[in-house]
Amino acid sequence: MWPLNLPEVQDLIRRAVQEDLCLGDPTTDCLVPPDLRGEGIIFAKKEGVLCGVEVALAVFRQIDPQVQGAIRAWDGERLRPGQKILEVRGAVASLLKGERTALNFLQHLSGIATGTAQLVEAVRGTRAVIVDTRKTIPGLRLLEKYAVRIGGGRNHRMNLGDGILIKDNHLAVLRSQGLTVRDAVQRARRYAPHTLRVEVEVTTLEEVQEALEAGADLILLDNMSLEEMRQAVRLVNGRALLEASGGITLETVRAVAETGVDIISSGALTHSAKALDISMDIAVAPGPTPH
Amino acid sequence: MWPLNLPEVQDLIRRAVQEDLCLGDPTTDCLVPPDLRGEGIIFAKKEGVLCGVEVALAVFRQIDPQVQGAIRAWDGERLRPGQKILEVRGAVASLLKGERTALNFLQHLSGIATGTAQLVEAVRGTRAVIVDTRKTIPGLRLLEKYAVRIGGGRNHRMNLGDGILIKDNHLAVLRSQGLTVRDAVQRARRYAPHTLRVEVEVTTLEEVQEALEAGADLILLDNMSLEEMRQAVRLVNGRALLEASGGITLETVRAVAETGVDIISSGALTHSAKALDISMDIAVAPGPTPH
Amino acid sequence: MWPLNLPEVQDLIRRAVQEDLCLGDPTTDCLVPPDLRGEGIIFAKKEGVLCGVEVALAVFRQIDPQVQGAIRAWDGERLRPGQKILEVRGAVASLLKGERTALNFLQHLSGIATGTAQLVEAVRGTRAVIVDTRKTIPGLRLLEKYAVRIGGGRNHRMNLGDGILIKDNHLAVLRSQGLTVRDAVQRARRYAPHTLRVEVEVTTLEEVQEALEAGADLILLDNMSLEEMRQAVRLVNGRALLEASGGITLETVRAVAETGVDIISSGALTHSAKALDISMDIAVAPGPTPH
Amino acid sequence: MWPLNLPEVQDLIRRAVQEDLCLGDPTTDCLVPPDLRGEGIIFAKKEGVLCGVEVALAVFRQIDPQVQGAIRAWDGERLRPGQKILEVRGAVASLLKGERTALNFLQHLSGIATGTAQLVEAVRGTRAVIVDTRKTIPGLRLLEKYAVRIGGGRNHRMNLGDGILIKDNHLAVLRSQGLTVRDAVQRARRYAPHTLRVEVEVTTLEEVQEALEAGADLILLDNMSLEEMRQAVRLVNGRALLEASGGITLETVRAVAETGVDIISSGALTHSAKALDISMDIAVAPGPTPH
Amino acid sequence: MWPLNLPEVQDLIRRAVQEDLCLGDPTTDCLVPPDLRGEGIIFAKKEGVLCGVEVALAVFRQIDPQVQGAIRAWDGERLRPGQKILEVRGAVASLLKGERTALNFLQHLSGIATGTAQLVEAVRGTRAVIVDTRKTIPGLRLLEKYAVRIGGGRNHRMNLGDGILIKDNHLAVLRSQGLTVRDAVQRARRYAPHTLRVEVEVTTLEEVQEALEAGADLILLDNMSLEEMRQAVRLVNGRALLEASGGITLETVRAVAETGVDIISSGALTHSAKALDISMDIAVAPGPTPH
Amino acid sequence: MWPLNLPEVQDLIRRAVQEDLCLGDPTTDCLVPPDLRGEGIIFAKKEGVLCGVEVALAVFRQIDPQVQGAIRAWDGERLRPGQKILEVRGAVASLLKGERTALNFLQHLSGIATGTAQLVEAVRGTRAVIVDTRKTIPGLRLLEKYAVRIGGGRNHRMNLGDGILIKDNHLAVLRSQGLTVRDAVQRARRYAPHTLRVEVEVTTLEEVQEALEAGADLILLDNMSLEEMRQAVRLVNGRALLEASGGITLETVRAVAETGVDIISSGALTHSAKALDISMDIAVAPGPTPH
Repeated sequence: MWPLNLPEVQDLIRRAVQEDLCLGDPTTDCLVPPDLRGEGIIFAKKEGVLCGVEVALAVFRQIDPQVQGAIRAWDGERLRPGQKILEVRGAVASLLKGERTALNFLQHLSGIATGTAQLVEAVRGTRAVIVDTRKTIPGLRLLEKYAVRIGGGRNHRMNLGDGILIKDNHLAVLRSQGLTVRDAVQRARRYAPHTLRVEVEVTTLEEVQEALEAGADLILLDNMSLEEMRQAVRLVNGRALLEASGGITLETVRAVAETGVDIISSGALTHSAKALDISMDIAVAPGPTPH
Repeated sequence: MWPLNLPEVQDLIRRAVQEDLCLGDPTTDCLVPPDLRGEGIIFAKKEGVLCGVEVALAVFRQIDPQVQGAIRAWDGERLRPGQKILEVRGAVASLLKGERTALNFLQHLSGIATGTAQLVEAVRGTRAVIVDTRKTIPGLRLLEKYAVRIGGGRNHRMNLGDGILIKDNHLAVLRSQGLTVRDAVQRARRYAPHTLRVEVEVTTLEEVQEALEAGADLILLDNMSLEEMRQAVRLVNGRALLEASGGITLETVRAVAETGVDIISSGALTHSAKALDISMDIAVAPGPTPH
Repeated sequence: MWPLNLPEVQDLIRRAVQEDLCLGDPTTDCLVPPDLRGEGIIFAKKEGVLCGVEVALAVFRQIDPQVQGAIRAWDGERLRPGQKILEVRGAVASLLKGERTALNFLQHLSGIATGTAQLVEAVRGTRAVIVDTRKTIPGLRLLEKYAVRIGGGRNHRMNLGDGILIKDNHLAVLRSQGLTVRDAVQRARRYAPHTLRVEVEVTTLEEVQEALEAGADLILLDNMSLEEMRQAVRLVNGRALLEASGGITLETVRAVAETGVDIISSGALTHSAKALDISMDIAVAPGPTPH
Repeated sequence: MWPLNLPEVQDLIRRAVQEDLCLGDPTTDCLVPPDLRGEGIIFAKKEGVLCGVEVALAVFRQIDPQVQGAIRAWDGERLRPGQKILEVRGAVASLLKGERTALNFLQHLSGIATGTAQLVEAVRGTRAVIVDTRKTIPGLRLLEKYAVRIGGGRNHRMNLGDGILIKDNHLAVLRSQGLTVRDAVQRARRYAPHTLRVEVEVTTLEEVQEALEAGADLILLDNMSLEEMRQAVRLVNGRALLEASGGITLETVRAVAETGVDIISSGALTHSAKALDISMDIAVAPGPTPH
Repeated sequence: MWPLNLPEVQDLIRRAVQEDLCLGDPTTDCLVPPDLRGEGIIFAKKEGVLCGVEVALAVFRQIDPQVQGAIRAWDGERLRPGQKILEVRGAVASLLKGERTALNFLQHLSGIATGTAQLVEAVRGTRAVIVDTRKTIPGLRLLEKYAVRIGGGRNHRMNLGDGILIKDNHLAVLRSQGLTVRDAVQRARRYAPHTLRVEVEVTTLEEVQEALEAGADLILLDNMSLEEMRQAVRLVNGRALLEASGGITLETVRAVAETGVDIISSGALTHSAKALDISMDIAVAPGPTPH
Repeated sequence: MWPLNLPEVQDLIRRAVQEDLCLGDPTTDCLVPPDLRGEGIIFAKKEGVLCGVEVALAVFRQIDPQVQGAIRAWDGERLRPGQKILEVRGAVASLLKGERTALNFLQHLSGIATGTAQLVEAVRGTRAVIVDTRKTIPGLRLLEKYAVRIGGGRNHRMNLGDGILIKDNHLAVLRSQGLTVRDAVQRARRYAPHTLRVEVEVTTLEEVQEALEAGADLILLDNMSLEEMRQAVRLVNGRALLEASGGITLETVRAVAETGVDIISSGALTHSAKALDISMDIAVAPGPTPH
């Protein structure tokens, strides 16, 4: 999994382990002999889309490099309740020490992937793709955006630097300076890295027209009604890509997609993700090591 | 705010800024003159309990130490829609660059505080206190547990080291070794730091009795029915503290509290928090600097 | 200066100070009383474009927060030999300890800005803009790309994530899989973040045609002859932006620009920058503190 | 290679990878199946002295620990155009992601080693050794000084703490205090770590005499004419080591060496190094793994 | 060894290596061919309790992952003079570079374990256990507290968060507010994490009585006379645990233990530990690699 | 204080605070209102030499930048019992949270300075200077070596890179290769940085003679008898500096110094330092802020 080897993600795993185990685990240290070996099985308790199995394994190996893992389901698989995800073998004490942190990663990332997959499923057959936003939990962006991709979504900007998006607050500032949307788009074309497209946020059909004439590559329809979106699609007629945003839910997403927009973005995918229920059983049963 | 000066939290703020601004902000850099000054107002769009206002301010000052802030609502305040939270003044470009990251912190932490306050309100008048768990988003534990306190809840263990909690997987391991709950509690008393209490997780009334006789200070009732919890309260009769856990929701928490348990713990407070809707308006309006 | 407050740049400054001062400065400590105050003047010894004056000041303040600085020339100014850049006042010992590291930053960044400005000047009056590449000194990318902007150039991709660039090695891999340039561009359009443009590297006119028909937004002409570039410009006729690359020098850049290409990129701007000669004089002369 | 395992160098490699890959590589991710395996060959395009091959390999392994490498030329080898340096095998996607960062290290370090070897060659047969200075790119000092050694040069001070060097600014300060060079050398002998030699920078023959009488172990002749250097050599007559410094070039270095000085130092070796042209070809051709 | 894999301890090992080897080891590099292989034997020169053998091995492997180690004595063993502790094989240069840092860890940690074991031995047969304090060397707490456990002691609080200890300065503040010890204990019971016990520091028998009535779980007798401690034991009579503290030495500890207190804490165990004399011999003798 | 601003020392302070306060301070948080202001006075309980007062203040300010400090005694002062060292004013809660960590730094560093001053005093009137070694607590070297200087001692090598010291293990390796001490010194002269002196460790008078003839600048007499040292002094007669090492104590140091050696080194200064007794009183007494 590509993000796993990035220093930022490795650091996050180290910090997460540290956060829970910084004082050791006196419960386990009192009760479990250090040489007692066993097996842990991580499994789904609810349906959903798995994400983070390699991160979970990395948590155990951060605590104890001797722990061995056998991955039983891969990121992107749809899990049935009871389905095995990961087997880990090694010192029982190490399995107990890693349990919570491994599950915290798995539950959060699988929750995001599952929520994304539901939106993706809901728009199947339309032209719309589901994308995330920059409304992510601080410090988790790389992993959360990975989870969105695993769930079948695509990524909007990873950060402020990989796309030009002229938003409401930019436009308010520009207008107070006597500048138009056309001025803004021209400046972006002239000064921004030439590898980036230019997107403009609008709230009315007049602004759609203005953004289109200004030469925007992408137009972000913020909190428009379905009818307005339909009109925007007709007005633009393929001359720019249209992104719908604002209060997207599983209930409303299909109707939005059917207006003909190209892209639907949802902040709730990451800022309000519901954890997927995943659990771990540990047993003293040192069968042969998995391979 | 005490956690704000901890290295771990300062690091998180730095990483969060880095995550969004690592390539700069070409949109703003193209459109906004660096010496244009203005004001940003962060305000609530929904009702809730505020948490993270000083973190939000620290985000702007990490980006630009010249930004000045005036805190208009403090952590713990109940927000009305439209209520001002924080005013920031300085270079408009710096305000635009910090907007998303500051809001990401505020929305997540206020979401947790709001969810906690709802549970706390629901059990008002009973003896039960609401506590969190170790089911937190990796890397965010200190801040998330702070948000729970701000919401009126109390904290369970911060990490594996500040309490002895003998859980289902520990007991499974112990039983396979021929050991009893009494043996476990005795070992914990003998070897664990003497400043820590001993808690035992149970699922049946027989186990409640066993834990009580073993001398547990705290007994964790895992996923018991209301009737079982009532019986446990009668059985224990004040000789240990009782904690109820498992699938607590805003709908069920009152009934659980009325069984007479002392403590109710909820993982969803942190692992599935819903962001509170908070927004920011930026205006070019260089009035006098707030004090 | 925006990059100065980024954690990555602050870290680099800290590491640079540490690298030189990790064992203290026994020469200075033996010779200079700690309470002796004085003034240092950093000045240009050769003509060039200044870059890094605020980084240089930050170096001194990292060593000793009591050092005060008065910036006498700002990033982007064309320096005459002898021109003052920065005055620093404080403990003479602190000025001596920071001298080399401050100059190392200034000389390197000003060298890049100066080299860039020479190329920019050479193409004045043509449509071509000068851009950098990802051929930067490891760990210095943010500052080096800042120096290119200060020199009047613009930035190509900051990293692999803020633009789609299908290069020779990608095409070799694709062809071995039976895929065409058209397939590549289509896949990029379908799967990459929608905020990114798609650029294709080509070495022949046939490939220019192929990239154009595949729908590339940008075409990178790698090491083509002037005549080929002219033909490419005619062939494309504004339907995509053309970038010329490969062995650009101050001698050749004008002719390349006159072929009509839109963008000229140069790795040597950053990978082989020549330091600008800048020096520092220190005197014991505690006049009034600058403001 | 000894510096490779130092935390500082490992950190630099991690940061360099992060700098380029922090958002992933959408180009590669769109185009190359994750399980496609292949081989990359890094080779010289120009003559020069190789430096950094193990760093380059470490870059790939930081991105993907599964990448296997076979080193075909070792640091210090003189490369012919076309000569293979390093073969890497593994996921084609990982090879593409590491290419630029690995080459950036190799080109910079080999550029320094090559430039050093040219000076070393030019003084062959004289008593002079070529040494570097503290004029290094911030954050790269350990690796750049390693490259100088690989090129046949030797290292001057690694930092301010491993040698006493009384420079022009120290002397200016001392004189304003009524102190002589003799006072300075005596203070250094009395207070500095006894393991360090004492060097004094001079610009005239009178100062050479003064430094000699003050008991300097080393005398740094700053920007003297050839004739002055010859006279200094005669004057000192082996009672101290003489170091020549200031504007050393490949054209002038032989004449400087023939004056009889012991040491010639050059800042340009590191502050203005020209990258050596090194490239990488990637092919889908999974032959047997190298060993 | 569990703390070895914690990020904090791994960081400390990295920093310790860096601290000594940041400029390389010119002595070894001049004298020892890089391919010369040999063996190092670390052995005790005095009697004591070993602690840190795996940390010592990790130091060598941080410097050179090719170094192989054979542990000849494990943490907790009582060492005889001359007894082998650790054999390391690999490049002689790597052994020389790691020698001092590995010994620094071993000598300090074994010194603590040895001092602890002496106190533990001195109180054998009494009910008292020996515990440490938070008076540790900054940055070393996890390892120093591990060494205390290895020496047979137990750990008091790891940090401010894993126990409630109301000390003299807290009580001074409370009294100035008109509050009693009873108030303090009640507040702690109401607001502190429910997993923590409450300890109160006292200096007189009246305060013992007050703390007992306030409901303290633990009472810390600070610098009391033996007679006062005996009276405190009688007064409390098992209703709380009693901890004796203040100026504990090997000469006085037995008498303190015989007063009947439960716990004896000593800051000198960690803040004034005497290093155990441990040394290393290196020989060029490349026998077969240990396993 | 110069080391205070080094990143390494700032990091150590951050980690030390983190180590103690990572979970907050529930005792203080339960008992002390956040807005209660007061004063803390740090004072000596025993005689000794102060070291670390600015580090102690930095600890409080790391926890709470609002804390104000007034330094009442400076590093290097000889303290009387009861003498004030540092007054800190601000939130009482912040003073309580920083107390232990601030004292841990002060007690350790003052302990080293005090022990050093005792040795320095004992050799007063002889030619010998007292120096430390590399036998320091891992991670503390910069501060511990600073404390030795504050105590009146001087520093031996800060790390392996700032001096050539050919020790017993080097000589064992060399001899097994058929090389002599002369060979070793010659190699060091030829390959090591020319700013470093060459020191050789010897154990017999024959080896003193051998080292002298080989041209060593410094000779380390390891564990020689007083009579042997006297003979070595006569034999060398000023042609090299002589350093005595091995088991130096306050009782033996004078006699060693009187043999006429130049330098006496002691590992116990740092590896077995005894903490100086320093304490802190906190009072609720918000007088005017110190200046």
